[in-house]
Amino acid sequence: MTASSLLEEISDVGRDPKRGGYSRHAFDAAETELRAWFVERAGRLGLGVETDRNGNIWAWWGTPGPDAVVTGSHLDSVPGGGAFDGPLGVASALDAVEILQAKGFRPAKPFAVVVFAEEEGGRFGVPCLGSRLLTGTIDADKARGLRDPDGVTFAEAAAKTGLDPKRIGRDSERLGLIGRFLELHVEQGRGLIDLGSPVAVGNTVIAHGRWRFSFQGQGNHAGATLIGDRRDPMIPAAETVLAVRKLAKATADARATVGRLVPVPGGTNVIASTVDLWLDARVPGTATPELVAEIAKLAEEAAGQEGCRVEVTRESYSDDVIFDDALRRDLGTWLGGPPELPTGAGHDAAILAGFVPSGMLYVRNPTGISHSPEEFSEAEDVDHGARALADVLEKLST
Amino acid sequence: MTASSLLEEISDVGRDPKRGGYSRHAFDAAETELRAWFVERAGRLGLGVETDRNGNIWAWWGTPGPDAVVTGSHLDSVPGGGAFDGPLGVASALDAVEILQAKGFRPAKPFAVVVFAEEEGGRFGVPCLGSRLLTGTIDADKARGLRDPDGVTFAEAAAKTGLDPKRIGRDSERLGLIGRFLELHVEQGRGLIDLGSPVAVGNTVIAHGRWRFSFQGQGNHAGATLIGDRRDPMIPAAETVLAVRKLAKATADARATVGRLVPVPGGTNVIASTVDLWLDARVPGTATPELVAEIAKLAEEAAGQEGCRVEVTRESYSDDVIFDDALRRDLGTWLGGPPELPTGAGHDAAILAGFVPSGMLYVRNPTGISHSPEEFSEAEDVDHGARALADVLEKLST
Repeated sequence: MTASSLLEEISDVGRDPKRGGYSRHAFDAAETELRAWFVERAGRLGLGVETDRNGNIWAWWGTPGPDAVVTGSHLDSVPGGGAFDGPLGVASALDAVEILQAKGFRPAKPFAVVVFAEEEGGRFGVPCLGSRLLTGTIDADKARGLRDPDGVTFAEAAAKTGLDPKRIGRDSERLGLIGRFLELHVEQGRGLIDLGSPVAVGNTVIAHGRWRFSFQGQGNHAGATLIGDRRDPMIPAAETVLAVRKLAKATADARATVGRLVPVPGGTNVIASTVDLWLDARVPGTATPELVAEIAKLAEEAAGQEGCRVEVTRESYSDDVIFDDALRRDLGTWLGGPPELPTGAGHDAAILAGFVPSGMLYVRNPTGISHSPEEFSEAEDVDHGARALADVLEKLST
Repeated sequence: MTASSLLEEISDVGRDPKRGGYSRHAFDAAETELRAWFVERAGRLGLGVETDRNGNIWAWWGTPGPDAVVTGSHLDSVPGGGAFDGPLGVASALDAVEILQAKGFRPAKPFAVVVFAEEEGGRFGVPCLGSRLLTGTIDADKARGLRDPDGVTFAEAAAKTGLDPKRIGRDSERLGLIGRFLELHVEQGRGLIDLGSPVAVGNTVIAHGRWRFSFQGQGNHAGATLIGDRRDPMIPAAETVLAVRKLAKATADARATVGRLVPVPGGTNVIASTVDLWLDARVPGTATPELVAEIAKLAEEAAGQEGCRVEVTRESYSDDVIFDDALRRDLGTWLGGPPELPTGAGHDAAILAGFVPSGMLYVRNPTGISHSPEEFSEAEDVDHGARALADVLEKLST
């Protein structure tokens, strides 16, 4: 068993014939199949598996306890995502356990592999939902009420998988067990391509958040309604898409994106009554809310000019994260001085970093592309990453 | 039985809880239920019902034959549409037959009520598909290959309802039976509100068509991809939405709309790889293709600036239609000189007008809004419209 062969085992689960790549969303058929696969695989390694109150799966090597060394990632994807974002960290963790077991190692500290729920926010809109709930970073009532595109709430979906929606929320007892958290992840940019290294240590995660802009106008007939009589929410929505690009370009190192935009009702011969769009904005430091405020101001002006209204709702926000200094130094030393990389991508490790010493390892992605079917990592690099993970987990749990 | 009570009977079929109003699309559960309702209602009037090779339903009063007087409309809706667009013409036709039967009238000419399939193009993209197929206005192979948003072809959907996909296409024999076609429809603009008349006679239908703009870029991670590294198809799509508005505003009496826009994969934290948008454009006279060419030029420029490509496909186009002069004059005389109205909306009557003398009656819509849950007609006006339809059908079929 190697991490690359484990990924091969699940390479047919959740393929998206329309978008390409994979669509594996929290508690859907594909993600549920992957969860079962993980439980089965962890069981074969003799790990003791349990699902916590928030839908995260924990596979313990030995007895659960405090000061635990925990590693893992997630199994869900963005719609039409790649094969590595999430599953690479889970497969590498399983491989690392096997590598350590094969050499007769037994951890002195409690040791667990974790699979976090809904990391991408691809179904309920809030990324890192499993780790946010564990840490209490999101209000439990707010989380229960989150809805997927079909109107199903997180509470309903959780109940359907056997969780008790009343018990969703901050889990101090479990959080208190984690001594160190380490997440291995595929690199999501071009950082490692030219550095000649298959692995890097993460140093920072840029502040990031999601905002929903809901433009309200007047639905009407596309042929019978004169231009002057229209209140078409698509117009200020389009102005906002362009404002996002313009303002992001003018802000150093900012990333701001509209990748999801939904006109309602969405008919070709119908002026929309509502257009919802989601802004993903990330600026290093504290400037993200300021950028979003500027965008919101322009959106309001554009809406007003068309006789529309716009409502802006923050769906999530996380400050800049710097991973634990001592852990970063140790990881660098143990791995022989690999590069350190910042990232614009969010991760469960960045949520946990606010509560326990946390760190990340990145594995080279020769396309530099992620959240797309073109996301890639060579099998050689994947297995190198799993061995590196095994090495540092051994040091951490000795 | 009145037309308004018939509409009441079907007022729960196909409600759209997400968009509001109704979503009744060709051959879906709701439209199929409405078809069954029509067959049952026509049967109670003693009409002989048959479905033609293209999925249009014909209910004959007496023996089918040439020089027939035909009236009807459609039962499908746009997504989240109103209760009147389509069903009003069908319910009024049934009511008119009952009114005429009740007074002991028997038509001297063959007489049929027709329900056309997929008038809105809400499922397969081409409006008036049933009447286009009947008249051969669309190529049968092209129609067979049209796909709904789930990838199901028209041929597959038709086969599932019991039609033979091989026999889809121009039906000269049936078309040859129609002597006059008359469609009653809810008014879709503000034309009748201030004219003090519950009913108008249609005179023209503005040229109209649909074009699909498919923008191709590079899907990628919304956080890890710097602005300068992006090829984001949402940017030229937004530019195109604004170009559509600007150019339509500058063209006298033009209507141009983007009501449907689909980013793929459509994740919040994902730069789209593709954005498809549909342009609905209508300019009186021959200028529609010219307007679309200008829009396409700007779309190409905007795509090029972002390192994207755009492909523009015409999905349908119909020239200006002027309804039959003699029929319009007769309708006006028989109804005591109601107003005549042009429309920017397409109709099956406008397709048939190229082949047989055709006309339309409009019924007042106090909101002036259509293709929206707010589309409305007072029960009093609805029943007035049905009586007017009965009056003119009596004259036509004597």
